[in-house]
Amino acid sequence: MDGIQLMDAPTRVSYDPAQHRGRTFHDVLPDFLAGRDDPRAYLERCLETIDLREPEVRAFVTTNVSAAREAADAARARYRAGVPLSPVDGMPIAVKDLYETADMPTQMGSPIFNGWRTNRDAASVHALRTGGAVVIAKAVTTEFGFYNPGPTTNPFARERTPGGSSSGSAAAVGAGMIPAAIGSQVIGSLIRPASFCGNHGFKPTLGALNRQGGHSGLSQATIGVHAASLEDIWATAYQIASVVGGDPGAPGLYGEAKLARGLRPERLIGLQKVGRSACSPDTQAQLEWALHALEESGVRIVTGRDDREVAELDEALLEARTISDAICGYELRWPLAHYREKYPDLLSDDISKRLDRWLTISPQEYRMMIDRRQQVRARFEALEAVSDGIVTLAATGAAPIGLSSTGDPILAVMSSLLGAPAVTLPVLSVEAMPLGLQLISFAHRDWRLLGMAMWVEQCLLHAAGRPYSREPKS
Amino acid sequence: MDGIQLMDAPTRVSYDPAQHRGRTFHDVLPDFLAGRDDPRAYLERCLETIDLREPEVRAFVTTNVSAAREAADAARARYRAGVPLSPVDGMPIAVKDLYETADMPTQMGSPIFNGWRTNRDAASVHALRTGGAVVIAKAVTTEFGFYNPGPTTNPFARERTPGGSSSGSAAAVGAGMIPAAIGSQVIGSLIRPASFCGNHGFKPTLGALNRQGGHSGLSQATIGVHAASLEDIWATAYQIASVVGGDPGAPGLYGEAKLARGLRPERLIGLQKVGRSACSPDTQAQLEWALHALEESGVRIVTGRDDREVAELDEALLEARTISDAICGYELRWPLAHYREKYPDLLSDDISKRLDRWLTISPQEYRMMIDRRQQVRARFEALEAVSDGIVTLAATGAAPIGLSSTGDPILAVMSSLLGAPAVTLPVLSVEAMPLGLQLISFAHRDWRLLGMAMWVEQCLLHAAGRPYSREPKS
Repeated sequence: MDGIQLMDAPTRVSYDPAQHRGRTFHDVLPDFLAGRDDPRAYLERCLETIDLREPEVRAFVTTNVSAAREAADAARARYRAGVPLSPVDGMPIAVKDLYETADMPTQMGSPIFNGWRTNRDAASVHALRTGGAVVIAKAVTTEFGFYNPGPTTNPFARERTPGGSSSGSAAAVGAGMIPAAIGSQVIGSLIRPASFCGNHGFKPTLGALNRQGGHSGLSQATIGVHAASLEDIWATAYQIASVVGGDPGAPGLYGEAKLARGLRPERLIGLQKVGRSACSPDTQAQLEWALHALEESGVRIVTGRDDREVAELDEALLEARTISDAICGYELRWPLAHYREKYPDLLSDDISKRLDRWLTISPQEYRMMIDRRQQVRARFEALEAVSDGIVTLAATGAAPIGLSSTGDPILAVMSSLLGAPAVTLPVLSVEAMPLGLQLISFAHRDWRLLGMAMWVEQCLLHAAGRPYSREPKS
Repeated sequence: MDGIQLMDAPTRVSYDPAQHRGRTFHDVLPDFLAGRDDPRAYLERCLETIDLREPEVRAFVTTNVSAAREAADAARARYRAGVPLSPVDGMPIAVKDLYETADMPTQMGSPIFNGWRTNRDAASVHALRTGGAVVIAKAVTTEFGFYNPGPTTNPFARERTPGGSSSGSAAAVGAGMIPAAIGSQVIGSLIRPASFCGNHGFKPTLGALNRQGGHSGLSQATIGVHAASLEDIWATAYQIASVVGGDPGAPGLYGEAKLARGLRPERLIGLQKVGRSACSPDTQAQLEWALHALEESGVRIVTGRDDREVAELDEALLEARTISDAICGYELRWPLAHYREKYPDLLSDDISKRLDRWLTISPQEYRMMIDRRQQVRARFEALEAVSDGIVTLAATGAAPIGLSSTGDPILAVMSSLLGAPAVTLPVLSVEAMPLGLQLISFAHRDWRLLGMAMWVEQCLLHAAGRPYSREPKS
């Protein structure tokens, strides 16, 4: 009744974007207010799905079911009294385990922090609880949010990666266990797993949501949201920004409380180079289909063939991974070198080997890289005058088979480098698995980006023969 | 033998800038290398002073003497072998208790964090230990680095404040208990206590030193150094930057490993408005004396009378406190509102009352304030073409009597707002107490600023009739 189509088997759930919607929250609010449904009942349905799916998906490190039930009961009382605190009141969420929670440990995917408790909520968690959200679990992350994966499996194929580093957040939403989860991205840690797990994933403008109380201080780190609907994404992001603002020094998230129901983009940049060689013909065909459908609906797709500045951006973005890796590598000397010295047996070989390389990056090279990043950003921002952003895939294909790698982030890293807002829509499919269509807009255009995403999603579902309504079900 | 003149009485030590030098470290290095002295012996001398002064000064929250002795012994072995790790090898330091230490709790001046351990070193602490520094203590801070003072007294007059929030760091260096300490500043938390306690205090360019693992995420927060000499300040700052760089995304500290021995400034801006009304005639006379002495030595002091853009800067800086308070207030909704909700009895009334006001600041007002800050920065930076920076007092007078307030930050807040490097020199005196002369330079000119400070200090000590040599003693 809340928009979920239950996965029909725990071991293999093939993905059809025209059928899958996941568990949404936004559409049940009228039922909550009308007394036909309530947050506790909603939570219990989530817990049923968790019981069914979690043994295989392994999205969670820690759960706190009793606290969640207590919070859901309090939310139920508020709806009954007609005074919900916010559009996320009663919404069950999970929090990527890089972000602190007062009632659960924060373990960062590392044995160094086994059972580590800080007795406080991260800014985002505080803001969501202030709005009545029901924090049910800490979600698996890779080791410190980098490469070494946790135990999570892809909710649509247990032999495939869920992506990383927001592995548990993406998988939990993809499996319909919860409607929304906090994730974060430095390279491709939110957009990529959202694509692999059939989520709507939103990486806001750099600094738009307060990431304090989270353990990633990297200059590209951005907290974001995985959800089964764009409305739930915006409600979550808006709630965080309303209570705790953005990162200190940043102007925070701009936009209205209510998401625009559909803003048709006029012109979108189509990239011809980045990630192209990594995509299979089937994957590429999905993108071509989407671009064609958008053009059919009047969106102009601008490529490097049409515009020299677009061609230069396309070329410049080929360096996004290299520049990002060097910047992050330099920034990681602390804490990782400290951890290696203090806990030599508890840091993975994978991180340790990368650290050896990162420690050779000089301050001069780092400065050159942040200058180059700034140049690419300026090049992109100049295109705001002539376009609404970029349309591309969110990943180079379906989630790869195997759990030892979290997949190629080449298409997700662009928005990290640009500090620009990005969203992925679970509207494509390859190998019977989800594939996200990604939209990237300009810094601080988050609200407009999600409004465009709403339009694009409706456009593509219509083109796919399933024009579904976003009206709440009765 | 290491440049210290021991305080002659624990209860009252009147201050004479021509006599006081504090405990320096830089000048003992030749003795260490020659085997005439060693880090363990140096540490023991520090411990003797601590035994003598700490019962009254109360600079430290936690000490770890056994770990310090072990680290000093290791440093001694390195000097004996002729292979010290860095210019801070063997240097005893204290760390402001907002910054994490693996071997001591991090309590932030708040009972909420009584005994709180994170089992890791902050970036700065890691970097200093990597260079062989001997971490001896955590130094008292006001509650979360804001207003509510700890128990520390001024080392030159126990009835007076040491200033805050880097109270313990400044007092410990002022009392000669240690040669250097980590402090930090958001409003006036380093420059002001350094002035009150007769320190050389250095607040670098915003972001120049990595402040991760510290609990102040505010957009003006800057980690810095208190020391008895400029050489020790630069050695400490340079060591931090070399190992862990600056804040993520910032280019970090620029400059050479060795401090310039004296760079004469050509033109310095003299302010005529900021703090003027708060200074007593005696205090003002100290500044006039210093400006006169500098002019006698060929430095041109430029004021608003000479230059319209300087007049406009002078006027704009009158707003530094207002803008900074609004920015910090908004940025403090997390964690302070979270702490108040979770630990209602453990947050001071002082913070709680301020928080009520801070919570009324809207995102729009915050954005307006960060724009205004940017405008003042741009106004100052435009003057780089025609000046070497600002010369002013570091505080509006001697440390005030009474321990309930940490004094007026109006002269220290300017560099925080500007994100500019600032240094205070203990070369003036009023009421037989220390008074700092402050130099502020332009962003990333830290090395040049300290070189100018070296020249200014020598110039003023010469003018005061005590031209002392900076050559190491034999």
